[in-house]
Amino acid sequence: MSQLRKDPLVNRWTIIATERARRPAAFVDPQSTVTNQKNCPYCQDKASPCIDESNGVKIINSSSPILDDSKPFEPHRHGLYEAAHSYGSHEIVVESPEHIANMADLPLVQIKAVLQAYALRMQTHRKNPFIEYTLAYKNYGVAAGSRNIGHARSQIMAVSVLPMRVKDKISGAEKYFDVHERCLFCDMVSQEIKNKERVIVENEHFVVIAPFASRFPFESWVLPKFHQCDFVEGIKAQEDSLASIMKDILLRFKIGLNDPAYNYMIQTSPVKDASSYKDYYHWHIEVMPRLTRVAGFERGTGFYICPIPPEMAAAFLREVDIRA
Amino acid sequence: MSQLRKDPLVNRWTIIATERARRPAAFVDPQSTVTNQKNCPYCQDKASPCIDESNGVKIINSSSPILDDSKPFEPHRHGLYEAAHSYGSHEIVVESPEHIANMADLPLVQIKAVLQAYALRMQTHRKNPFIEYTLAYKNYGVAAGSRNIGHARSQIMAVSVLPMRVKDKISGAEKYFDVHERCLFCDMVSQEIKNKERVIVENEHFVVIAPFASRFPFESWVLPKFHQCDFVEGIKAQEDSLASIMKDILLRFKIGLNDPAYNYMIQTSPVKDASSYKDYYHWHIEVMPRLTRVAGFERGTGFYICPIPPEMAAAFLREVDIRA
Repeated sequence: MSQLRKDPLVNRWTIIATERARRPAAFVDPQSTVTNQKNCPYCQDKASPCIDESNGVKIINSSSPILDDSKPFEPHRHGLYEAAHSYGSHEIVVESPEHIANMADLPLVQIKAVLQAYALRMQTHRKNPFIEYTLAYKNYGVAAGSRNIGHARSQIMAVSVLPMRVKDKISGAEKYFDVHERCLFCDMVSQEIKNKERVIVENEHFVVIAPFASRFPFESWVLPKFHQCDFVEGIKAQEDSLASIMKDILLRFKIGLNDPAYNYMIQTSPVKDASSYKDYYHWHIEVMPRLTRVAGFERGTGFYICPIPPEMAAAFLREVDIRA
Repeated sequence: MSQLRKDPLVNRWTIIATERARRPAAFVDPQSTVTNQKNCPYCQDKASPCIDESNGVKIINSSSPILDDSKPFEPHRHGLYEAAHSYGSHEIVVESPEHIANMADLPLVQIKAVLQAYALRMQTHRKNPFIEYTLAYKNYGVAAGSRNIGHARSQIMAVSVLPMRVKDKISGAEKYFDVHERCLFCDMVSQEIKNKERVIVENEHFVVIAPFASRFPFESWVLPKFHQCDFVEGIKAQEDSLASIMKDILLRFKIGLNDPAYNYMIQTSPVKDASSYKDYYHWHIEVMPRLTRVAGFERGTGFYICPIPPEMAAAFLREVDIRA
């Protein structure tokens, strides 16, 4: 038997395997995802010229950018279709001068510097009137869409259209606020901390939960306990706290699940009209190991099938001993 | 440089690599996806009891169903969350008595029997007043979410909630109809056949195109040339034609891309209120080889990045010689 669960934000249903759920140990990755590449371009300064550098974190332009500012974003029609130049920016954040693969293994001070670099680059891109959204994210390991180079890095994209997924989240948060006059994320934080069973770890400013309608096994959301729609404003004076909880959850993945591939995405508010989101949107980070493949059912319906209940995933991750 | 392209149905943007596009040959799968498993459960009748059998196609219940009818779909609240029993049905279509892995290698008459079995099962499930949608789909190969057994099979799901992705498609088609008083899919078929560059193959009743805003390399849509919202009605008297064009596109994948993993999903209209969709919805099949991994940018935005322009993918698939 399985259970259907609805994500309260975007109304997306997930099918959660319960009785037939796979045990957490069944997801432990049989092989490590990262192999070292010789002649690492990020060690040897062979990569693109540096845009910015501070505290050992380097920002460079992607060598194969999927967004650039060579032409403006001007949609034009092709019959019933619409296309435009892929305007924006695509930067790589080289997270450390050391050749270390997994952010989980970086010192706290280095993770803090990476988070600060995200905020600084976002601030810069927001000054561009053609930018609607900035996304900082990481692909770690081949299964997460990264190449095997073995040098920790993440990416920052600045795009000229508001992404559909951000729109859906904002619209869901607004609807909840209209009914309850409260932020959905704040309510979620309270309920999860009170309920405990989906909490993986928490500190003074943040809590990491396995979301109720998890799409993926061991999916984890890093939720700020204090209401703020914007990542850049949100981490001010809380960088140490965020660095510490990010390292914690990434170490739990690494130790508990044998260094799996993973993605994380910082979900902040749109660049424009920030004042209209400030009451009901709440920035957060989605972190997800990549242990299963999305199949035809997910593609055909938009539903997800999660092979382990989030309560079981949270209990497993809580018990991982990260004091190595 | 890349191009942003908007899907006219669901307004989803895709970033299409153009100048930096990978050449089609770069996607050819280095290894065959299917290895044979000894003691195939589908050969040895060790699988679940047969629900239906005709023309060598067997319908069985999934041995690990993610939907079942043991309890009704009755949503209940957990604080701000909502959950329900995962009501519905989950059936496996064993496509042939022979141990053949890829539908591309089945005789036409067998593919036709599979399509007829989909229609028959859909008709049965629709009589259940608690069913809102029926999805027939296939996962072929590990990268597509299937196990390596080497015996062609597909799946039929009947679900008690209308999937988000189906809702989005219907809402997009309705908006287009409201403005143009025409079916978006019919207009797409006309434009694509006139334009030719994204057409992979066509016959009397169907055309296969690489969609303008392709999400994945070599993504292909099988579009009926005649307007009909419903798969069950739509294939009547056209089963031979559909079987022939399905075999054709699957052979092009197999020969041109070295037997890659793939999914297909039959996108038909919802079970209820069929009369309200009939003017503007148009059934179709999405077919997609699984050659790349979705990464953090896609997960964080809902955008997709397609590393090859659909025009180049279509030209490559058109030229594959399938008369082996």
